[in-house]
Amino acid sequence: MFKRLLIANRGEIGMRILRCCQEMGIETVVAYSSEDEGTLPVTFSPVSVCIGPASPTKSYLNQDALIQAAISYKCDAIHPGYGFLSENPDFAKKCEDAGIKFIGPSSEMIRNMGEKSTARSLMKSKGVPVVPGSDGLVNSLEEAKEIALKIGFPILIKASAGGGGRGMRRAYDMSELANAFESAKAEALSAFGDDSMYIEKLILNPHHVEFQIIGDEHGHIVSLGERDCSMQRRNQKLIEEAPASILNEKQRAAMQKAAIKAAMAVNYSSVGTVEFVVDHDKNFYFIEMNTRIQVEHPVTEMVTGVDLVKEQIRVAAGLPLSFKQSDIKTHGYAIECRINAENPEKDFAPNPGIIDFLHLPGGAGVRVESAMYSGAMVSPWYDSMIAKVIVNAPSRLEAIRKMRVALEELTCEGIDTNIDFLYLLMYNPEYIMGRIDTSFLEKNCEGIIKWGKESRKEAQ
Amino acid sequence: MFKRLLIANRGEIGMRILRCCQEMGIETVVAYSSEDEGTLPVTFSPVSVCIGPASPTKSYLNQDALIQAAISYKCDAIHPGYGFLSENPDFAKKCEDAGIKFIGPSSEMIRNMGEKSTARSLMKSKGVPVVPGSDGLVNSLEEAKEIALKIGFPILIKASAGGGGRGMRRAYDMSELANAFESAKAEALSAFGDDSMYIEKLILNPHHVEFQIIGDEHGHIVSLGERDCSMQRRNQKLIEEAPASILNEKQRAAMQKAAIKAAMAVNYSSVGTVEFVVDHDKNFYFIEMNTRIQVEHPVTEMVTGVDLVKEQIRVAAGLPLSFKQSDIKTHGYAIECRINAENPEKDFAPNPGIIDFLHLPGGAGVRVESAMYSGAMVSPWYDSMIAKVIVNAPSRLEAIRKMRVALEELTCEGIDTNIDFLYLLMYNPEYIMGRIDTSFLEKNCEGIIKWGKESRKEAQ
Repeated sequence: MFKRLLIANRGEIGMRILRCCQEMGIETVVAYSSEDEGTLPVTFSPVSVCIGPASPTKSYLNQDALIQAAISYKCDAIHPGYGFLSENPDFAKKCEDAGIKFIGPSSEMIRNMGEKSTARSLMKSKGVPVVPGSDGLVNSLEEAKEIALKIGFPILIKASAGGGGRGMRRAYDMSELANAFESAKAEALSAFGDDSMYIEKLILNPHHVEFQIIGDEHGHIVSLGERDCSMQRRNQKLIEEAPASILNEKQRAAMQKAAIKAAMAVNYSSVGTVEFVVDHDKNFYFIEMNTRIQVEHPVTEMVTGVDLVKEQIRVAAGLPLSFKQSDIKTHGYAIECRINAENPEKDFAPNPGIIDFLHLPGGAGVRVESAMYSGAMVSPWYDSMIAKVIVNAPSRLEAIRKMRVALEELTCEGIDTNIDFLYLLMYNPEYIMGRIDTSFLEKNCEGIIKWGKESRKEAQ
Repeated sequence: MFKRLLIANRGEIGMRILRCCQEMGIETVVAYSSEDEGTLPVTFSPVSVCIGPASPTKSYLNQDALIQAAISYKCDAIHPGYGFLSENPDFAKKCEDAGIKFIGPSSEMIRNMGEKSTARSLMKSKGVPVVPGSDGLVNSLEEAKEIALKIGFPILIKASAGGGGRGMRRAYDMSELANAFESAKAEALSAFGDDSMYIEKLILNPHHVEFQIIGDEHGHIVSLGERDCSMQRRNQKLIEEAPASILNEKQRAAMQKAAIKAAMAVNYSSVGTVEFVVDHDKNFYFIEMNTRIQVEHPVTEMVTGVDLVKEQIRVAAGLPLSFKQSDIKTHGYAIECRINAENPEKDFAPNPGIIDFLHLPGGAGVRVESAMYSGAMVSPWYDSMIAKVIVNAPSRLEAIRKMRVALEELTCEGIDTNIDFLYLLMYNPEYIMGRIDTSFLEKNCEGIIKWGKESRKEAQ
């Protein structure tokens, strides 16, 4: 097992890793930016080291400073958490070269899964369902028309080098195709200097369902079941739950088989997430594989009883998985709400500042992951998530009720938060019925906020 | 199901019941003393009612005020929590007479289990092992000698009307018997006006192992496994855990069978605890049955996944148990530490006052039950317990490690607490080896406190 581990992250995931290492008897060095001096992970770790100023590029994304800190403090492992450098193949490679274990898969695996077209081709070749589309690049409008006719509208035209929605266009019928194809190409060329395009069928308003996978270096792959993360706003997940109530046992088993196949295809080692979209006919398609521990991992931990971070560290140390697929049983339902310092009524604008008073909920089946406390500072430099509240109960409805009670109890004074918005969601009939797809928040946000305002007025 | 429930308790158990009712959709009325105005349960409940001044006899023990409040607020149930009126048969009877459901067993059952000699005789007649002793009262010194010879020394001479250690004497051999018998009689006469005596074998330094039982009004009884509560100081439990590591499967099964038999004997309905002492040869003896929810119930909840308070309320409403014995599986180990506002270095003197800053631990497998927050007042009028920290992990050692991390993180400024003392216990070799009996703290307290002082000096 590792002797000393550098935590190259902050906030709640910093605390999560820190607690885990302490329980495992692994010494910790918390790397922090000057902005984060005095935060909980820094205070709680016996050793911590400032690796740069507030700006992420100069601290949490500063690869050389982190490697240097790990070497100086004789760390034999680095845990990148999520975000920042957690899926950066160059950083993983630098760790490998420095003889420091990067807690995650190999740099090669991160690279292959990070290039979406490569991952898509690989998965398709292994028989994992991918969204129907072109095999490789689409070189002309004529070719685009052929493919569109084959797969059917609507379609998504995507730049191979694209990202962040740039060089991407939708076409709902043939009349839109030419314009969409040419404008996507033009945008791609100007944005990335590369106008290679490919085409995928556009899955309208899908559900987002992902499978938690873990593999060791001995060829074992185990699935820990799925999470439904359809409650998203601008691709940011807000509420996650397990199991996914839209799936029946047969559908779940089919998707799990595909997820394991996907992980097997790359001989995956570490925790990872195989993400699918599920259309309204329950067809599912691989979209990508995340090669890190995810924000929403506690949902899976609560229903399976497995400590994913601990197991991630164990397999990184070369140990075999401590369980087999047949050991994994899920118990009840778990729901996670992400508590953000943001104001839903001001288009969810982040609202950093000092938390004057914080009271976190507790009790049976309630778990909180947070690095906040009364008097803590929410920095404007980083993600606005200040806590995750996760509940576990025998049924989905009981879990929803438990979350309502937890959110009522959760008190955070001094900054704006989305607590009330999440609370309203817990009373939304569509959510309660489990009928949410990824378009739900886009369509309903305003209505929910309005409903909240009216309820407040009535209460007065 | 009940429509509105009066919570006749305070502090963490008040919060526990309140959260549970809210999750179940039961309206709550929190009854509180004027001292407790502004506490979390009072603030968190939509309705609350002051039932008297700080002194417990005038508020939380004020039967008529509580019944009156329940009637005024149209409550159809009263939850007494633990302590206070939770095992008072007269209060249970008054509730019954007023047509308000007392959340617990019938007044008759409480009365029968509350009279120790009655309970003992009943259990013995049903084949539940009790500590060897006299059958009924011992009327003369000659008779006492006969019994002592039969059961063997050491023995305990007890006043039938006794309690709180009064009218009780130990005799380690025949030479001590006459004096012990006569002085116990004299003390009993002056203390209780009744010098009826009985004799039990004195079990030296036993383990305290108790079984959690729940029964419904339809004749079903289920055991939820045992808890080891041997870490006690002056009969006050400090650390509880499940399962009991001193038992093997055969011993556990035999004790569980006896516990179920005990509950069956009285056709028990509600949650209850069958307490046993276990001697160093693993013989076990019934000592008493507690007819309330216990402080340490979360330990059982964490290993079984059952919400005991919810189930207690359900069966009180006449519903059948929502599980069978075969549904109960325990997962891993759970440990609870009672966090008290007291100073171990001053003979554990209570230390009420304002908590200037409170940070409770969180994360995977950590549960906190508390009604405290930064700025809260620990009242001198009531129990000094301010929180319970409960952890759950796959193995006992992992649970101990998790508790260490949780206690390190737990920060409570402004008042003295036993947090450091508990932390030291988590590093005590005897505790780690699971070799604790009920005499452990009596014998080792001073040494542990001294060790703590020395460690602090060294660290400076």
